Amino acid sequence: MAGVEQEQTRSEKPSEPWVIGVDLGGTKIAVGAVNRQGQVLARTVLPTPVSDGPQSVLAAIAEGMRQIAAGQSTPPAAVGLASPGPMDNKTGVAVAAANVGWYDFPVSGPLQSRFGWPIYLENDANAAALGEWAFGAGRGVENLIYVTISTGIGMGAVLHGRLYQGSHFTAGEAGHMVLVPDGPLCTCGERGCWEALASGTAITREAREAVARHPESLLAALAGGDPLRVSVAQVGEAVRRGDPVAQEVWERAVHYLEIGFTNLANLFDPDLFVVGGGVTNLSDLFLGRVEGYINAHANPGMRGRLKMVRAGLGSDSGVLGAAAVAWQGLPSESWVEQARQEAV
Amino acid sequence: MAGVEQEQTRSEKPSEPWVIGVDLGGTKIAVGAVNRQGQVLARTVLPTPVSDGPQSVLAAIAEGMRQIAAGQSTPPAAVGLASPGPMDNKTGVAVAAANVGWYDFPVSGPLQSRFGWPIYLENDANAAALGEWAFGAGRGVENLIYVTISTGIGMGAVLHGRLYQGSHFTAGEAGHMVLVPDGPLCTCGERGCWEALASGTAITREAREAVARHPESLLAALAGGDPLRVSVAQVGEAVRRGDPVAQEVWERAVHYLEIGFTNLANLFDPDLFVVGGGVTNLSDLFLGRVEGYINAHANPGMRGRLKMVRAGLGSDSGVLGAAAVAWQGLPSESWVEQARQEAV
Repeated sequence: MAGVEQEQTRSEKPSEPWVIGVDLGGTKIAVGAVNRQGQVLARTVLPTPVSDGPQSVLAAIAEGMRQIAAGQSTPPAAVGLASPGPMDNKTGVAVAAANVGWYDFPVSGPLQSRFGWPIYLENDANAAALGEWAFGAGRGVENLIYVTISTGIGMGAVLHGRLYQGSHFTAGEAGHMVLVPDGPLCTCGERGCWEALASGTAITREAREAVARHPESLLAALAGGDPLRVSVAQVGEAVRRGDPVAQEVWERAVHYLEIGFTNLANLFDPDLFVVGGGVTNLSDLFLGRVEGYINAHANPGMRGRLKMVRAGLGSDSGVLGAAAVAWQGLPSESWVEQARQEAV
Repeated sequence: MAGVEQEQTRSEKPSEPWVIGVDLGGTKIAVGAVNRQGQVLARTVLPTPVSDGPQSVLAAIAEGMRQIAAGQSTPPAAVGLASPGPMDNKTGVAVAAANVGWYDFPVSGPLQSRFGWPIYLENDANAAALGEWAFGAGRGVENLIYVTISTGIGMGAVLHGRLYQGSHFTAGEAGHMVLVPDGPLCTCGERGCWEALASGTAITREAREAVARHPESLLAALAGGDPLRVSVAQVGEAVRRGDPVAQEVWERAVHYLEIGFTNLANLFDPDLFVVGGGVTNLSDLFLGRVEGYINAHANPGMRGRLKMVRAGLGSDSGVLGAAAVAWQGLPSESWVEQARQEAV
């Protein structure tokens, strides 16, 4: 992986405050320097050394932070670190980040000792929600629900202009909202969870079964006749080309998206739903329909007033979400006010 | 209905600030004088003159306010008014209070013109949530979810120590969270909503069918052999006396309570669930079980840490909830701080 990339968009005022955003994933660690406007001033990516143990992952993060800071003329105002799993942002401990082997693992303390900068931890879906609220598709709205649909379904909520984490840092487990008691088994051990019905994994599972049952279908042809090779992208392509086998799989998943989002509307009544994750590569095949459904089926008081958009931050979303966590952690209301004033 | 009752618990300091709480229902209007500690200093109850039209309902509220204020030595600091349906607490308009015929009906303006006191409107389930947070079973916790189970299922959320209303004043429609797509028809026109599966109305519906199928059952005997006379209380009594027909009805409803509350736990991860409404007369038959279930089935990060208690405010809950809305509306953080400091 490459070294630090300095952006052309580097701020003119070298002394303007900036933060580090760290997006920790199971295969790579993306680290960026981000200003208050959400511009990425510099970025670097390192492999996640999972097999070398939890301390090595922490060391790789520190190395990324060092590289990024070395390229700036001032130290960062703060660091935000986003990771899957519940993060205790009061004590700076990763409660359970299974993909990097962190369990009750102190993160902020060691990094703070080394660098002396304030560190704020956050769950990755929560950070993405805050990033979209601060810099992306939902800038400055009062209440935003972010939902990511990829292998699983995750959620983050910005309510009253503030990230809502819950009392044990595990709010927003929308993927495990049960929609069909006794439905398909979920990775969590329960049955009929939303992500067992409408995630990329669920779509792939149903598509495999459909391909096995219908070897004559276009979907089967796209997968080379091998049910195990079928992908969400192939389902989308077959749907566009009118394959009824793919359409049945797709329609079922979209209907569960409709029901799940209607439930979230009824519970949260937000200004805006922002939808991210890999399945949004097919957003033209579902986003407008789901928006139409919730506006016809949620509580009458909100019908016709609910909006749903695709996430706006693209490939930098992880780093920008983590950076938003850093900015929100700082004792400065001005940033929040700025996002609100810039609200669309 | 009787006139104003002055309480023995009347405050010693006659000049201490107090508010009026108005609990507007379809059959009666309860109005009380309430101090910061949640003591009801005086109360009165008037019939709701629904058949005389929306303006008459407003006039009855004004009369109740006048009676209560006449008994105090100082004017109230504010008035809180709780009603079913979405209330726009920014404009003071009842968006839709179907049981009293208010649709886009201005409430705060006329009352303020007459009395000159600040008026704050709120949905009744939201007000009950705030009342329990301020004065009842959930005093001062950071995140509280209140659920009322009676003819329907309603919800109110206090998040980050503040009532969460949603962007269109319709958050917390937990009763219309769909748990069984294509399940029983709900009053809202959708199918398989939580309240179509686990409310008092749902329990009664299932009990009627069970009584019709099993005229030999104890439940049928308790209902005098008439399916139309069966009640939730009779189901409870038959369950306690070991009637398998009643037990089957009850077990099904409790299971949907388990699933619904687990969904709310996964979404909100609160410190505390507070459960009110008529069905809690049978709370010994379900509250502990549901608490056990959510602590075994919600996200691992919150398991064993979720608490569920019965609402604590009893028959004054409506007036106290409305009074809490009035206190929260006033520009004084001291009240919030007090509730937090008194947190158990």
